[in-house]
Amino acid sequence: MTHKKEELRDLINGIQFNLSPMSDNFVDIILSSLDKVDTSHVWSNTDKVSTLYRGTRKAVWDAVRAVYVQSYKEGVHTSIHMTFSKGCPGDGCDNYKLDVEKEDVNNEESRKIDFDLAGKFSLYPMGSGDYMDLIYDVIEEGKKRDVTREGGDYATKLKGNVHDVFDYLEYVAERSNEDVDHYIMEITLAHNFPEGE
Amino acid sequence: MTHKKEELRDLINGIQFNLSPMSDNFVDIILSSLDKVDTSHVWSNTDKVSTLYRGTRKAVWDAVRAVYVQSYKEGVHTSIHMTFSKGCPGDGCDNYKLDVEKEDVNNEESRKIDFDLAGKFSLYPMGSGDYMDLIYDVIEEGKKRDVTREGGDYATKLKGNVHDVFDYLEYVAERSNEDVDHYIMEITLAHNFPEGE
Repeated sequence: MTHKKEELRDLINGIQFNLSPMSDNFVDIILSSLDKVDTSHVWSNTDKVSTLYRGTRKAVWDAVRAVYVQSYKEGVHTSIHMTFSKGCPGDGCDNYKLDVEKEDVNNEESRKIDFDLAGKFSLYPMGSGDYMDLIYDVIEEGKKRDVTREGGDYATKLKGNVHDVFDYLEYVAERSNEDVDHYIMEITLAHNFPEGE
Repeated sequence: MTHKKEELRDLINGIQFNLSPMSDNFVDIILSSLDKVDTSHVWSNTDKVSTLYRGTRKAVWDAVRAVYVQSYKEGVHTSIHMTFSKGCPGDGCDNYKLDVEKEDVNNEESRKIDFDLAGKFSLYPMGSGDYMDLIYDVIEEGKKRDVTREGGDYATKLKGNVHDVFDYLEYVAERSNEDVDHYIMEITLAHNFPEGE
């Protein structure tokens, strides 16, 4: 299949992330988490600062959810920072994998790992003057699903079961995709807080 | 001094951040870094997931630079994730400190600590259709200052001396402020990589 650049920009989704296990053993935890993920359905690249997956929306979310749950170690406080982006006009459209048969190859394994987390996210719909309506819409849905906490400047606080939160984040991406061509989600999640979740 | 909400939105700058020392000793490193910073010139709040400073542009950058350099420990790989935001229409304008005599109270102490880092940042100018010009402008300035690396999807890679990088990030904020009312900068920095900077 070949696509024009404009079509590609509407198909390629990217998620960049950094895992930060707050442990002397951080190198092993990061590398073994990345290893456990089936990345055959996304384009993947790890550089000095972060890892990037590019592909279909469902496939990149499936992969990053897998990395995060696979990084779980009893008693180790770990955070992940993720930036999800779609439709950036500056995107070179060079690196991607789109022709995949299955977009949730990691899902079955991921769902076997279960824990609570706390975090926050912000949504940035680009190139439009009335971007706040979409933001208020998705915050409202977060309240209904009981995965958000009250308050917070600049970000919406997240809480609860890891899979409920990822399901909600995927909903935010899907919902934003209906309204805007270019949007970014900035997300921080963490678990095993010294004081509890 | 009293201000209307619209005026306040143009004066209040916020920076939220998470420090992640990848060490068993992470609690002490985080808390002692926060303690060493003079926060008398910003409004400050630490919650479960991150710390937020709100105030003048110079004062919030001065405070967060101080936190990051004070977190430096020989041999400890540490990352910081920062979100700088100005002019969000959803900002309640409740918590801030603006009437300060000195905006760089930490600068002298901060400059005594010096190291190299690697990182990345993205700039999100909101509410406008031609936001890419500003982005390309600030990337060009980064090349001139030799604090950016080639390549990178979704983000511009940063490198070099911690103070050169912070001076550049402050320039990006100042430059963006000239063009747009609402903008966000998402930044990840890290030092003491296992493989070197």
